[in-house]
Amino acid sequence: MRTRPLRVALLGCGVVGSEVARIMTTHADDLAARIGAPVELAGVAVRRPGKVREGIDPALVTTDATALVKRGDIDVVVEVIGGIEPARTLITTAFEHGASVVSANKALLAQDGAALHAAAGEHGRDLYYEAAVAGAIPLIRPLRESLAGDTVNRVLGIVNGTTNFILDKMDSTGAGYQEALDEATALGYAEADPTADVEGFDAAAKAAILAGIAFHSRVRLDDVHREGMTEVTAADFRSAREMGCTIKLLAICERADDGASVTARVHPAMIPLTHPLASVRGAYNAVFVEAEAAGRLMFYGPGAGGSPTASAVLGDLVAVCRNLLGGATGPGESAYAALTVSPMGEVVTRYHISLDVADKPGVLAQVATVFAEHGVSIDTVRQQGKDGEASLVVVTHRASDASLTGTVEALRKLDTVRGVASIMRVEGE
Amino acid sequence: MRTRPLRVALLGCGVVGSEVARIMTTHADDLAARIGAPVELAGVAVRRPGKVREGIDPALVTTDATALVKRGDIDVVVEVIGGIEPARTLITTAFEHGASVVSANKALLAQDGAALHAAAGEHGRDLYYEAAVAGAIPLIRPLRESLAGDTVNRVLGIVNGTTNFILDKMDSTGAGYQEALDEATALGYAEADPTADVEGFDAAAKAAILAGIAFHSRVRLDDVHREGMTEVTAADFRSAREMGCTIKLLAICERADDGASVTARVHPAMIPLTHPLASVRGAYNAVFVEAEAAGRLMFYGPGAGGSPTASAVLGDLVAVCRNLLGGATGPGESAYAALTVSPMGEVVTRYHISLDVADKPGVLAQVATVFAEHGVSIDTVRQQGKDGEASLVVVTHRASDASLTGTVEALRKLDTVRGVASIMRVEGE
Repeated sequence: MRTRPLRVALLGCGVVGSEVARIMTTHADDLAARIGAPVELAGVAVRRPGKVREGIDPALVTTDATALVKRGDIDVVVEVIGGIEPARTLITTAFEHGASVVSANKALLAQDGAALHAAAGEHGRDLYYEAAVAGAIPLIRPLRESLAGDTVNRVLGIVNGTTNFILDKMDSTGAGYQEALDEATALGYAEADPTADVEGFDAAAKAAILAGIAFHSRVRLDDVHREGMTEVTAADFRSAREMGCTIKLLAICERADDGASVTARVHPAMIPLTHPLASVRGAYNAVFVEAEAAGRLMFYGPGAGGSPTASAVLGDLVAVCRNLLGGATGPGESAYAALTVSPMGEVVTRYHISLDVADKPGVLAQVATVFAEHGVSIDTVRQQGKDGEASLVVVTHRASDASLTGTVEALRKLDTVRGVASIMRVEGE
Repeated sequence: MRTRPLRVALLGCGVVGSEVARIMTTHADDLAARIGAPVELAGVAVRRPGKVREGIDPALVTTDATALVKRGDIDVVVEVIGGIEPARTLITTAFEHGASVVSANKALLAQDGAALHAAAGEHGRDLYYEAAVAGAIPLIRPLRESLAGDTVNRVLGIVNGTTNFILDKMDSTGAGYQEALDEATALGYAEADPTADVEGFDAAAKAAILAGIAFHSRVRLDDVHREGMTEVTAADFRSAREMGCTIKLLAICERADDGASVTARVHPAMIPLTHPLASVRGAYNAVFVEAEAAGRLMFYGPGAGGSPTASAVLGDLVAVCRNLLGGATGPGESAYAALTVSPMGEVVTRYHISLDVADKPGVLAQVATVFAEHGVSIDTVRQQGKDGEASLVVVTHRASDASLTGTVEALRKLDTVRGVASIMRVEGE
C-alpha cells in the first residue's frame, strides 16, 4: 500500500458532510485497505466557521471553498452543498485543478450534467454522484454498469421520501393532505417550506438523471413533465382502494414502444396493491427497473438522511480513489443513443376519472360518446346516484395524454357534467 | 472509437450462453458505443458441436475449449459452463494467456474464489461474476463498490428461485412439500434431480460468495452451515401463520455483535409477513442488506433464467472491456479484514419449537425448566391438548444455536415429551 494519503476536500458540512467526515475518521483503516492508500480530510469548506463540529480538526475548516479546491494538492472534492451555485463553479474549478469529484447534488446534475461530465472528461477526472438519487440505494452504479449490456425500457420509482411519507400516512389513516403534511413536518420528514418535495421538483431532478443514464441520452430537468401531489385527496385514496390500488408520487422514465423516443414525468398515480412499489412505506424509496434481458428489478432503501447519503458518497469516494491510483477513470456520460424526449401529450397510460354529473337518464351515453370521439376506450364505468347528484367513475384503456386532455376539455363543456372531481393516471399494471 | 474489436471467447452455449451470444449480435452497436470499441464473438466452446445454434456462425463453434482460451488473441473469456472442472482450469489458462474472465459459476467461485482472484491479479486481469449470485439482480457490484465505504452487518437473502417457488406454493395453497415440488418440476422451475436446490447447496455457494465480499474476508463453501428445506411441512406453514410469519429458505451472513467474527448459513426460517422478503413470490430472488450507514437495502429481481443471467454477464463484459481499453483493472478480492467464520453453534437467533407431549399436569413446568437450565429464555408458549395428546409450541428469545441444541437434546430425554415435531429459526425481526 502506498503511504502518501489521498487528499479529500469536503465542501459542505451539514447533515451529510459531517457524517462523511465522521466515517472517514472512524473507519480510516477500512477505507485505506479498500482503496489501497490512506485517505485524509485535507479541508472542509463551510458557511459558518464558528460552529463546533465534533471530530473535525478546526484547523481544516475554512469559509473559502474556492481557495480550497484551487489548492492543487486535492485528489478528490466531495460536494455536498447542494443547489446550482456556487456548487457548479466549485466543481468545474476542482476538475481544472486536477481533482475528481463526488457529488450528491441532484439539482445541479439534472440541470448541467452534460457540461460537468464534459469538464471531467476534458481533465481526465471522474464525476460520481450515486448519492444524488435515492440516498443510499445503489442505483446510478447498477444502471450505469450492471445493466450496461442490457436495454432498459422503464424506470418507475418512488424517489422522494417526504411525499411517500405523506401519501402513506393518508393511505393508512384516511387523513387529508394537510394533516399528513403537518405530521411529516412535525416529525422532521418535511422541511418548513415543502415546495421542492410536494410539488415534485426534487423527484423531477432525479427522474432527469435516471432517464439520462437509463436511455443513454441527454434528459434535462426541463424535459421532465412535473405534477405535484398537493391535490391528492382522501377521496382519491378511497377510489384507489376500490380499484385495488394505492396512490404514490412516481418518477416514470419510459422508452416509447417504437424505441425511438423516451418520456420522463413525475406525478401522483394509482398503482395496484400487488405491485412491489405499493408496499414501500414511510420515507423509504424504491425504484423499479424493467430491462429487456434482466426483466423486472427493484432497488429499495432509505432515500435520504445523513448516514444513508454519506454511505453513497463514501462508496463513490472509494471508487474514485481506486481509479486515481490505477490511473483510470470510471464510466463518463453515455449519451450516444441521443433519443428524443417526447412531450407529455405522447405519453400513453390508463386513467381514472371521477366526474360529478346530473343524475338523469342519458348522461352516461353522452359521456361515453365524448370518450369515443377522442379515441379513448373505456375499460369500466361505475355510476353512483344520490339526491339528484351523481358521480361517474371512468377507468380507461391505454390512451395518449393528449387524447385524454381533449376528452376532459370536451367533458367540461357538457351541461350534464357539473365538474371533473379528479383525474389520476393508473401505472404499474 | 478504436476499430480493432475486442475478442470474446464463450465457453458454454446452453440457456445462458446462447442468450449472451444472441444479445452480443443483436445489440452489437449498443455494446460498441458503451464500451468504446466493438466486441466480437471469436469462438464458442460447446460439448455437442452438431447442434444447430441459431444466429451463431458454425465456423466459430469448437469442442476444444482449451485451444480456444490458449489462442492468445482472446481479450475476454466468458465462462458459463458451470461446475468445478474443466471450468477452473480453463479460467486459469485464460488468465495465463492474457484474457480477463467473466463467470457465472457460483460453485467454483465459492470453492476457489481466492485462488482465481490471485491468478487474475498475477496476470493483471479482471475476474467478474455478477451472474453467479441472484441472476440479473445487481448485487456483487453494489456490495463490492457501492457499499465499499460502509460496514455491512448482515446479508439476508432469498437466493434460490426453485425453493422459493416451492415454499411460496406451499404457503399460498396449503400443499405439502412433495406436491409443490412436483408442480415446480412440471413447470420447469425444478430440475429432474432437485438436490442442489432443495438441499441448499446452491444457496450455500451464493452465501459463501456474498459473505466473503460483504465482510472483506475469505468465506468458503465449507464455512457455510447448510440445511435443506425438504422437511418443511404444511403444518409448519400453519404454525408460521399463527405467528404472523411465512417460511423462506434464507441465506444469512452476519457479523457477530462484537464485530470480530462472522457466520454464514442457509436454512429454512420463519420471517414476519411484514418483512420485505416475505412478499417475494414465485421464483423471484431478493437480498436484504443491512449496513451501518446505509441502513436497510433490498435488491429484488429474477434470480435465474437465460436472459436475466445473460444480462448480468453482459454488464460484466462491458465493464471488463472498458477496463481493458483503459489499461486498468476493477476491484479484485478484498479479504483484508480476515474475520474468522464462527461455527453454527455460535449463531444467535430465535427459535420456534413444536413438541408433542403427554397431556397431563406438570409438563409445561418440566419443559420450561429444561429451557431455563440451558439458558434459553422463553418468549411465548402455546399449549393445545386433545385426547390425551398435547402439543406445546415454544418461541424463544435470542439464544445461541449450541444452547438450543442442548435444550432439544434434553427435551428428547423427558418421558413426557413424545417427540420434537419441528424446530425452526425465526429471522428478520
